[in-house]
Amino acid sequence: MGRRRRFDLDHGVEALCAGDRAALGRAITLVESRREADRIDADALVHRLLPYAGQALRVGITGMPGVGKSTLIEALGQRLVAAGQRVAVLAVDPSSARSGGSILGDKTRMTQLARDPRAFIRPSPSGGALGGVARRTRETIVLVEAAGYDVVLVETVGVGQSEVMVANMVDFFLVLTLAGGGDELQGIKRGILELCDLLVVTKADGDNMQAARRARAEYEGALALMPPRSPGWKPRVGICSAVTGEGLDALWQAVQEHRAVLRGSGEWERRRGEQRVHWLWQSIRDGLQEALERDDGVRRRLAELEQAVRNGATSPDVAAAQVLAAFLSRG
Amino acid sequence: MGRRRRFDLDHGVEALCAGDRAALGRAITLVESRREADRIDADALVHRLLPYAGQALRVGITGMPGVGKSTLIEALGQRLVAAGQRVAVLAVDPSSARSGGSILGDKTRMTQLARDPRAFIRPSPSGGALGGVARRTRETIVLVEAAGYDVVLVETVGVGQSEVMVANMVDFFLVLTLAGGGDELQGIKRGILELCDLLVVTKADGDNMQAARRARAEYEGALALMPPRSPGWKPRVGICSAVTGEGLDALWQAVQEHRAVLRGSGEWERRRGEQRVHWLWQSIRDGLQEALERDDGVRRRLAELEQAVRNGATSPDVAAAQVLAAFLSRG
Repeated sequence: MGRRRRFDLDHGVEALCAGDRAALGRAITLVESRREADRIDADALVHRLLPYAGQALRVGITGMPGVGKSTLIEALGQRLVAAGQRVAVLAVDPSSARSGGSILGDKTRMTQLARDPRAFIRPSPSGGALGGVARRTRETIVLVEAAGYDVVLVETVGVGQSEVMVANMVDFFLVLTLAGGGDELQGIKRGILELCDLLVVTKADGDNMQAARRARAEYEGALALMPPRSPGWKPRVGICSAVTGEGLDALWQAVQEHRAVLRGSGEWERRRGEQRVHWLWQSIRDGLQEALERDDGVRRRLAELEQAVRNGATSPDVAAAQVLAAFLSRG
Repeated sequence: MGRRRRFDLDHGVEALCAGDRAALGRAITLVESRREADRIDADALVHRLLPYAGQALRVGITGMPGVGKSTLIEALGQRLVAAGQRVAVLAVDPSSARSGGSILGDKTRMTQLARDPRAFIRPSPSGGALGGVARRTRETIVLVEAAGYDVVLVETVGVGQSEVMVANMVDFFLVLTLAGGGDELQGIKRGILELCDLLVVTKADGDNMQAARRARAEYEGALALMPPRSPGWKPRVGICSAVTGEGLDALWQAVQEHRAVLRGSGEWERRRGEQRVHWLWQSIRDGLQEALERDDGVRRRLAELEQAVRNGATSPDVAAAQVLAAFLSRG
């Protein structure tokens, strides 16, 4: 990457909008780069492409490892491309942000879809803080939309804050879970029921069928106790099998009904606008905290202050005032 | 308030630690003041009192208006003081932060408890942003603890972010709900089940009894689907009646069991330390955002940038970079 030539903006925009996969790949690499010069080019590129973006249907898909995300995306993606849709699959993996290696969006786990010219699969950008992963993912959504993909599937693993992050950048949030042996706890994570537009119990085939149906009933009960995220949409629960194809049509049917309802009420556009403003403020707050933590005067103080606050020797607000004074008085 | 004399720190600390109610009232007024001079005194006071604080059992209580919070607190509080405990009741009401008037902690709704010398009831501080309300509430907890109260009940209404805020400053989070007519939705709010250590269905008496028992069973099912907040404690569901007293003993029993379990595992102290660090960073972030929004160069740009981002003309991150540059380059 260090030897990469400077990005040719005009040509990049033209080729990408023409649907050139190589150009799209280079553009994503640019957006994922953390070199200063690349950052400037990436901002310019994203800005140029904004007018061509926003037309795709953005679907977030989450579930614990082993729930069968890749298998479902492979099966769903093949149906979508067969129906003439162009499908982009992006992966968000905060654990790869920690470990520096990506475990998601692995093309070897979506062999059929990866080979299809109408599909584009991109693994999780590795390295960097969650805020950076969020930014690169949102920018990549702009790129694939400008490249003409009709559906963007954003896959994330049930770890850390990644679902909340993804739920805030998609139109529809799909949660996958397994029918556990009477104990569903391991299958789902705190706060996730709150985010989902559709919960699907996977691997509903063979001997699993009964357990899957039981789990569906239980989750329907749980979701009925929660006010829906949107006035126009009551979260649903389904079962599916990537093997038999059971439930895949119903799944996509729900996604499309959801879009029709929210578009009809105007909530669709309103929500996207709110998501953009949400990311503006998120990006501002992240930037402020980064600047603060980079500040020498602050770094010297912060460690000991945090310790003093933790053990109750100093009040959080007095310590915060000292940190802020050290930061804002500088320059 | 404008005519109030400067606060006498030494005398204030002494009188407050001696349990002088008037001194406690003056100290809370000082902490709630938004005058600069008072802020300095308040910081000094809280800092002086920290060594005497932290001994109380802090219980957050939430529920939608009409669920019977005040009635339950009145009944519970009377039992606690009858058992020799000193009880402080604080109220957090974000709506009062907006309207400027408090609707909670109204002594006229806790007449018996308000008259008891072993109880201290303080309405919600009115005015100011949620961050300010949070700070004043946390500081008030320090004051009442230093004044020797054994139990601090922090009441909040089921509105906005107040529950998350309160859950982050107490040891035990109690959620009250009503048995709805088959539809529990109105009774509970998004994300609340995730926070609660104990969910109690109120007004379980007379004709309501059956519905309350049904609701309890339903909520037990829902909570079973959520991983507990603490490895050592599985959230419980109970019913209670402030009229017949049904369930009040079990309620307090759960609070004490919870404390015993978490203290035994060391999670109690660890959690308090984490809460303090959480508030340090919250306070830092709030302060940074306030400073940013106060900045002239920023304010000029922000409105139009936010609009450009909302309608998709500018990317959130490019806009954020402009805001940050305008802010951090100043001075």
